[in-house]
Amino acid sequence: MTELPKGYRFAAVAAGFKKKDRLDLGVIVSDADAVAAGTFTRNIFTAAPVVRCKQLLAKRPYARAILVNSGQANACTGAEGDANCLRTQEMIAEAVGVRPEEVLVASTGVIGAQLKMDLWAAAMPLVRENLGASSAADVSRAIMTTDTVPKTVGVEVELSSGPARLFGMAKGAGMICPDMATLLGFIICDAEVDADWWGQALVRCVNISFNRITVDGDTSTNDTILALANGAAGVRAGSDADREALESALCEICRELAYKIVQDAEGGTKVARIRVAGASDAAQAELAARAIGHSPLVKTALFGCDPNWGRIVAAAGRSGALFRAEDLVLKIGGIVVFEKGQPAPGDMDSLLAPIMNGPDIEIVILLGEGGGGYELAASDLSRDYVSINADYRS
Amino acid sequence: MTELPKGYRFAAVAAGFKKKDRLDLGVIVSDADAVAAGTFTRNIFTAAPVVRCKQLLAKRPYARAILVNSGQANACTGAEGDANCLRTQEMIAEAVGVRPEEVLVASTGVIGAQLKMDLWAAAMPLVRENLGASSAADVSRAIMTTDTVPKTVGVEVELSSGPARLFGMAKGAGMICPDMATLLGFIICDAEVDADWWGQALVRCVNISFNRITVDGDTSTNDTILALANGAAGVRAGSDADREALESALCEICRELAYKIVQDAEGGTKVARIRVAGASDAAQAELAARAIGHSPLVKTALFGCDPNWGRIVAAAGRSGALFRAEDLVLKIGGIVVFEKGQPAPGDMDSLLAPIMNGPDIEIVILLGEGGGGYELAASDLSRDYVSINADYRS
Repeated sequence: MTELPKGYRFAAVAAGFKKKDRLDLGVIVSDADAVAAGTFTRNIFTAAPVVRCKQLLAKRPYARAILVNSGQANACTGAEGDANCLRTQEMIAEAVGVRPEEVLVASTGVIGAQLKMDLWAAAMPLVRENLGASSAADVSRAIMTTDTVPKTVGVEVELSSGPARLFGMAKGAGMICPDMATLLGFIICDAEVDADWWGQALVRCVNISFNRITVDGDTSTNDTILALANGAAGVRAGSDADREALESALCEICRELAYKIVQDAEGGTKVARIRVAGASDAAQAELAARAIGHSPLVKTALFGCDPNWGRIVAAAGRSGALFRAEDLVLKIGGIVVFEKGQPAPGDMDSLLAPIMNGPDIEIVILLGEGGGGYELAASDLSRDYVSINADYRS
Repeated sequence: MTELPKGYRFAAVAAGFKKKDRLDLGVIVSDADAVAAGTFTRNIFTAAPVVRCKQLLAKRPYARAILVNSGQANACTGAEGDANCLRTQEMIAEAVGVRPEEVLVASTGVIGAQLKMDLWAAAMPLVRENLGASSAADVSRAIMTTDTVPKTVGVEVELSSGPARLFGMAKGAGMICPDMATLLGFIICDAEVDADWWGQALVRCVNISFNRITVDGDTSTNDTILALANGAAGVRAGSDADREALESALCEICRELAYKIVQDAEGGTKVARIRVAGASDAAQAELAARAIGHSPLVKTALFGCDPNWGRIVAAAGRSGALFRAEDLVLKIGGIVVFEKGQPAPGDMDSLLAPIMNGPDIEIVILLGEGGGGYELAASDLSRDYVSINADYRS
C-alpha cells in the first residue's frame, strides 16, 4: 500500500447506531481547507445529508471534514431529519475544531429511521479522543453495512513539482444499489488543485466507474462520492500534463473501488463484465448492457455457473436497444456463442464450463449498428442475496 | 366449473421433450373454422412459432387448431428452427385432419435448443389416438414448465341470442417473465364473432391483464396469447351490448389467468397489487409501478414479510416518474405509511405485520400530480426463485 495523502486525520467510533461495538461513525479531517467535489444520487428522495452536501458545495467548493455514519440513512425523514443532520454537523465541528459549514456529511442505513441523537451526543467525546489515533482503515470499516470487506485504494502520482497521493474508500453495492448498501465513496488527495477542474474531473471519473456498476438496479437515496484535495503535499496540478496525470490516478481509484464494490455485492459470487459494442450510439449500448446486467435470469444463471446464453440474448432483445436479430454476436470469455440468429456450432456447455466457473466473466455483445459502446460490471444473484435482503431489518 | 365451449377437441401427449412421462405436447382443435386473434412478445428475438403465428394471422384471422409444446422454445434457432416449426405444423395438420396453415403454433422451454424432430414424429400416432379423449385440463398441464399448478378459467356469458362459453388456459410467469416460463395463454370461445372486433378486443383485454403483471422483468422470446371463437354455440355477438358482454367475459378470463400466473410465480409466496394514482399521465404512473414491481429490494422485503416501506419509496424515487418528494403518499393495506416527506406517526412495524404476513398485499402510491393511474401485480423474490433459475438447465 502506498503512503496516505498528507494532512489528513481520521476518527472512527463505535456509537451503537445499529450493533454494539461495531465502528459506525467516521470522520476525515483535513488540516487545511481542501478543495471539495461531490457527486450524488439522482433519486427524487434524496437523503438529508445529500441535500446538505449539495447546498454546501454549491455555495463554496471547499471543506475541512467529512462525517459519515452507518446505521440510519436519514432519508425520507422530513424536517426532523434535516434538523438532525445540521445538528450532527455542529457536534462534529465542535469535536474536531472546524466550522459546521466546513463539514460534509453522508449517511447509510435503514430509510425512514431518524438519527439516534442521544447516541450521537454520547459519541462526541470518543470522536475527540480518537481523532488522529484512528486510521483511514478504521474509517473504511465504520462505513460498512452489508459489506463483507472494507474497500480502499491508494495511488501515488508524479506531478511536475513532485509526488502527490490519493486514497479512496468506498462501501456498498453500487450507484445502482440496495437502499441499505448505499454507495458511499470518499477520496482524499494531497495535491493542490483548481476547484472547478477538480469537480469536473470527479464527475468524469465517476461516470466511467461507479456509474457503470450494478448490483440490483435500485438506486439509493444516499449515494455520495466526495473528493477532497488539500494541497498538503506542496505540489500543484498546474499544467495540463499534471492534471491529466492526476485525473488518471483519480479514475484509477474510482474504477478499483467500483470493481471492489461489485466483487463484494450482497451475496455475490461473480463479477460479469458486460461490454456492448456496435450500437448506434452509447445510449443504445447502455440500454442493452443494463438490461443484461439487471436481468434476474442472467444473474441467477451466472450464480449457477450455467452457460444459459439464451437469457443474455433475450435480455438484449427486450432492452429497447435497436438492432437486427441476425446481426447480434454474443461472446462469452472470448468464445463466439451466438451469431447470425443462431447458436454457434460446437458443444458450448463444455467449452464455456471453465469460464462460467471462474470469478470474472466477460460478456461481449456486438450489435452491428454503429460505433456506440458501453461497459458495465454486474454482480450475480444468489440465494444469499435474497436472505440478506429479506431478513435485513428483522 | 362452467361447461366448456362447444365444438373443440383436445389432445395431450407425453412426447419426452424434456422429462419422461410428462405431458409436453398439446393440441386444441376446433371442429369449424374459428376466428383467431393473437398478441405476441415485443422481444427483438421472436421465436420461430411467434413469427409463424404472426404471418398466418396477418394473412387470414382464422384457424382450426393450436399446437403447443413445452421443452424447447424454438427461439434463436435460425433457419433450422423455422423449418422445424413448419414441419410440426404439417405433422399435426395431418394427424388431426386440417391444413398446415390452419394450425397456430406456440413453444416454451430452453432458448437456443432445436426441436427434437424424432420425438415429434414418434408422438404423432399418440396425438391421433388421444384427440377427443384428452381433456382441456390435460392440455393445460402439457404447457407447464416451472408452473406448480395448471391455470384455467371458464366463464359463461349470456348474449341476446343465447349463452356462449369462454375457456382459457395459461402457463408461465408473466408477459414480463422468465425465458423458460414464457407466458402462453389460449382462450377458446363458442360464440360467433366479427374477426376485426375479436382481434381488437383481445388486445384491449391483454393490455389490462397479462401486460400488467411482472415476475422478474424479463420479457420472453415466446410470449403468445391466442384466442379462438368458432361459433359452435349458435349464438352471435351481433349487437354492441353483446360485444360488450363478451369482451367483459374475455377480460375476466385474461385477468384471472394473469393473476394465477403471478400467484404461481417461480418461487413466489405473495402477490403485491401495486396501484399508482395521481401521476401526470398513465405512462408516468406505469414507470413508478414497474420500478416498484421489479425492485429486487422491494420483492425480497415482501418475501421476508418485512414492512420495509423505505424501499418502496426509494424505488418510486428512482423510477423516472415526475413528482415532488413531499407530495407522495404511500399506503400499504390501506394504512398511510409515508406522506409529506416523512414517515406517518405510529408503530408501523406492528400495524403492518398482519398485512405483510398475508398472501396478497395492496400497495397504493399517490403522486399528487394529475389523473394518471396504473396497476401492476407483482410477485416477490425468494431463495427458491434463485434456486429454480440457477439450476434450471443443470
